[in-house]
Amino acid sequence: MNYAMIFYIIGWIFGCESVLLVPSLLTAVIYHESAGIAILITIGLCLLFGLPLILHKPANQVIYVKEGFLTVALSWILLSMMGSLPFFLSGAISNPIDALFETVSGFTTTGASILSDVESMPRCLLFWRSFTHWIGGMGVLVFLLTVIPMAGGYHMNLMKAESPGPSVEKLVPKVRTTAVLLYQIYVILTVIQIVLLLLGGMPLFDALTLTFGTAGTGGFGILNDSIASYSVYSQTVITIFMILFGVNFSVYFLILTGRFRKAVLSEELRWYLGIIAVSILLITFNIRNLYSGIGEAFRCAAFQVGSIITTTGFSTADFNLWPELSRTILVLLMFVGACAGSTGGGIKVSRILILGKSICRELYLFLHPRGKKQITMDKKAVEHSTIRTVQAFLAAYVLIFAVSVLLLSFEGFDSTTNFTAVAATINNIGPGLNLVGPAANFSIYSTPAKLVLIFDMLTGRLEIFPLLLLFYPATWKKF
Amino acid sequence: MNYAMIFYIIGWIFGCESVLLVPSLLTAVIYHESAGIAILITIGLCLLFGLPLILHKPANQVIYVKEGFLTVALSWILLSMMGSLPFFLSGAISNPIDALFETVSGFTTTGASILSDVESMPRCLLFWRSFTHWIGGMGVLVFLLTVIPMAGGYHMNLMKAESPGPSVEKLVPKVRTTAVLLYQIYVILTVIQIVLLLLGGMPLFDALTLTFGTAGTGGFGILNDSIASYSVYSQTVITIFMILFGVNFSVYFLILTGRFRKAVLSEELRWYLGIIAVSILLITFNIRNLYSGIGEAFRCAAFQVGSIITTTGFSTADFNLWPELSRTILVLLMFVGACAGSTGGGIKVSRILILGKSICRELYLFLHPRGKKQITMDKKAVEHSTIRTVQAFLAAYVLIFAVSVLLLSFEGFDSTTNFTAVAATINNIGPGLNLVGPAANFSIYSTPAKLVLIFDMLTGRLEIFPLLLLFYPATWKKF
Repeated sequence: MNYAMIFYIIGWIFGCESVLLVPSLLTAVIYHESAGIAILITIGLCLLFGLPLILHKPANQVIYVKEGFLTVALSWILLSMMGSLPFFLSGAISNPIDALFETVSGFTTTGASILSDVESMPRCLLFWRSFTHWIGGMGVLVFLLTVIPMAGGYHMNLMKAESPGPSVEKLVPKVRTTAVLLYQIYVILTVIQIVLLLLGGMPLFDALTLTFGTAGTGGFGILNDSIASYSVYSQTVITIFMILFGVNFSVYFLILTGRFRKAVLSEELRWYLGIIAVSILLITFNIRNLYSGIGEAFRCAAFQVGSIITTTGFSTADFNLWPELSRTILVLLMFVGACAGSTGGGIKVSRILILGKSICRELYLFLHPRGKKQITMDKKAVEHSTIRTVQAFLAAYVLIFAVSVLLLSFEGFDSTTNFTAVAATINNIGPGLNLVGPAANFSIYSTPAKLVLIFDMLTGRLEIFPLLLLFYPATWKKF
Repeated sequence: MNYAMIFYIIGWIFGCESVLLVPSLLTAVIYHESAGIAILITIGLCLLFGLPLILHKPANQVIYVKEGFLTVALSWILLSMMGSLPFFLSGAISNPIDALFETVSGFTTTGASILSDVESMPRCLLFWRSFTHWIGGMGVLVFLLTVIPMAGGYHMNLMKAESPGPSVEKLVPKVRTTAVLLYQIYVILTVIQIVLLLLGGMPLFDALTLTFGTAGTGGFGILNDSIASYSVYSQTVITIFMILFGVNFSVYFLILTGRFRKAVLSEELRWYLGIIAVSILLITFNIRNLYSGIGEAFRCAAFQVGSIITTTGFSTADFNLWPELSRTILVLLMFVGACAGSTGGGIKVSRILILGKSICRELYLFLHPRGKKQITMDKKAVEHSTIRTVQAFLAAYVLIFAVSVLLLSFEGFDSTTNFTAVAATINNIGPGLNLVGPAANFSIYSTPAKLVLIFDMLTGRLEIFPLLLLFYPATWKKF
C-alpha cells in the first residue's frame, strides 16, 4: 500500500478545500456576518494540515486500483469532517454529528437536512452549504486531476473510484484532458443556468445557491419551503436544468464535437428521457384533481419527477400528500437514479439496463444451454468485468439497504419513514416520505441512526465499493 | 419444442390431481357435506382432460431445459385452475378469481387468503385447501418423476425447474431414486408431526390439516385466529417442525445414511439456524413488555420467527402490533427465506450466501485486479453458471418486486400494505403487515391486483425463470 501517496493526495484535498472556502468567506465579508470567523479558522486548519502533506511529495507515485479507491473514500470522509467545522464553530449547528450530517449531505449531493429553519442561518454558511453540492457533484478528485502535479498513467484509478456509473468512459485518450473537459461542460452549464435565473429576476445570491444545488443534483434550498415560493419561470428553468445535469456528460461532449447523431442514439439517454416522460404523464393524471388545472398538475409532476430521478431533491409541493400511485412512482424513481457520468445518484439507468439485459441473457441461456450471448450497450459489447461488478453492486446495495433499515428500526418510527430515509440517503436524494418527507427533516433520528445515514450517503455517492474496502480486513494486510 | 411431450406430462398432472382429490372426497363423505359433489365433478373433469392426453404417449420423449421449465410453469397454472373448481363449483368462494387466488396460494405454499371467515367453510374444502400445501411443498413434478413411465435421462430438467434453490443436488446418482428418497423423508416427517400433535390431544382433522400446512411451509389454518387457540404443546411442536421443514432435505438424507458430521457442517444449515437464533433473541427482548413473562415472549418470538423465515405464515399473535424493530426483523426474514432444497420459499439462505461471497470476491478483485478467487460452498467450488443464475435471479426478483408494488399502488392503499403484500406473496409467506396483516386478509384488493399477486405467488414458488420464460418471445419461436 502506497501510504505516502495517499497522504500526499489528502494533503492536496485539504489545500483545495481551503481555496474552495474563499467564496463563502467573501460572502461573510459582503454581508458582515460574524460566522465568517469560523470559515477563516477552517481555512487555517486546512492549510495547517494540508501544506505539510503537500510538501512531502513521494518518490513513488504509483497508485493501483486499491489505493485509488481508498484515497477517494478517505478524502471524502476527511473533506466532510473539515467542511463541517464552519457550521459547528460558528454555533449555527451546535451538535458536531449534525454538522457532519449536513456537510456529508452537501458533498454527496444528497440534500437531506437536519435543519428545521434554514432561513435563520447566516448567508455565508448557506452559501457554503449549497457550494458543497457543486463541489461534490462533479467530484473532488476529478477536479484534483486537473491541477495536481502527478506522474501520468495512474489518474484513471482515482477517476474510476469517484465517477458514478458502471464503467468510466474517457472522452479523449488522456485522463487529465478528459477531466478538464468534464469540468468545462459543468461550468458552462452552471453559468447558463445562473444567467437564466437572473434574467427571470431572481436575486444573485438565490440564483447562485439554487444553481449549485441543481448542478450537483444536491437539493439544499435556502428557504424553508424549498423552491415553492419562486416564480413559475424559475421553477421551469430549474426543472429543465435538473434533467440536463442528470444526463451523461459524454452526451454533451459528443454534441459539442458535432457528433449529434451519436449523442441522440445513446441507449441510456433514451431510456432516461422515456422513464421521465412516462412518470410525468402518470403522475399528472393521478394528481390532476389536487390542482387548479391540468397545466399546474403537469408542472408540479414534471418538477418532482425531474427532482427525484436526478436525485436532486428540491420540492415545490409536499408530494407526501399525493395519492399512493404518485408516491410509489417517486419512490421507485429514487432507486432508478440518473445517468452514469452525470452528477446524479441512485442505481443509474445504465446499471439497470445492464441488469435487465443480464436477465434476458439468462432466459436466452435456458433456451440455448450451450449458446453464447453478449450483453451490448450502444451496440458495443459490455466487458465481462463490468457486468460482474454491476451484479455485485446490486447485491451489496440490497444488503446495505436491508442492514440500514434494520438499524434504523431501533428508533421506533414507522417503516415507511425508515425505508424512505435509507432510500433518500443511499440514493443521494434528500427528502423521503412520512416523517422525513419534503416538509420535514432528519433531526428526528438519534446520533447512531444519523451515523448510519451518513454512511449511506457516502456509500451512495461513491457507489459502495470504495467505502466497503475500508471495512474489508484484507485491505489493510501487507502483501 | 416437444409439444407432444408437454401435453403428455400435463395429462399426467390432471390424472394425478384426480387421485389427490380423493382424500377430500372421503372427508366430504365422512362429514356428509354437499360440497363433495363439487369435488366429484372436478375429479371427473380431471379424468376427462387428463386420460386422452396420457393415452397419447409421444415417441420422442426428449425434454430439454426449455421444455422442462415450460412444462413446470404450465403444469402449475393448470393444476391451480383445476384445483380451484371445488371452491367455485360448491359456491364456497363465489368469485372464480378469488377461488384461483386461494388455490394458487395453497399450491405455492403461500397461505395468503381472501377468506375472512375460514371456519364457515365445509370441512372437505378445508381439507383440500390444506392438502394443496402438502402437494405443493415438495412439488408436483418431482412426485410425477416417481410414478410416470418416462424415458430416462431427462427427468433432471423437470426437477431443475421445480426444486427451490440455486442448484439441484442429486442425493444419489439416479434422479428417480432421488425423488423417491425426498418423498420418503417428506412423508416420514409428516407422519411424525401428525402423531406428536395427536399425542397432545389435538383432533385428527386438525392434526392432519395443520401438519399439511406446516410440512409444505404453507400456512393455511382452519380457525380464524390461525394457531393462537391451540395448546402451548401444539404450538411448540409446530414451531419445531416449521423450522425442520425449512432445512435442506439433503441434510436429512446425510443423517439417515450416517453422515452426521457432514450434515452438521453444512454452511447453509449453520447460517439458517444462526439467523433464527439471533432473530428470536432480538425479538424476545423487544417484545418482553407486551407479554406476561420472558418465557411467553420467547415462545411467541420463536413461533413467529420460525413461521416467517420458513415462509409458512402461521401466526399465534398479531405481530402487526409489535414494535417497529420486531416488525422490521420479520419483514427482512420474509426475504431471507428457508434453505434450498426445503419446502420453504423466499430468496433462500444459500442464494444469499452466494451473493455475499460474490461481494467479497469483488472486493478481493479490487485489491488484486489480476487475481482469481473462487466462490465456494461447503468447501466445494460453486459453478460459474450457478453464480450467474443467482445474480440474474436477484435482478429479476428486484424488478418483478418493483413492478408489482407499482401495479398495486393503483389501488390506493398505504405503501406498507402494498410492499408487504408483494413480499408476502412473492416469498410464499402469507400474511403481510397493516391491511394484509395476520389478522386481516387479501380480499381488499381488486381483481387486477389479485392477478398480480397470483403471478407473484407462482413466480416465487417456481423461482422466477420458468414463469418469465412464458413471457419471453423467443421461447415460442421455432429454431
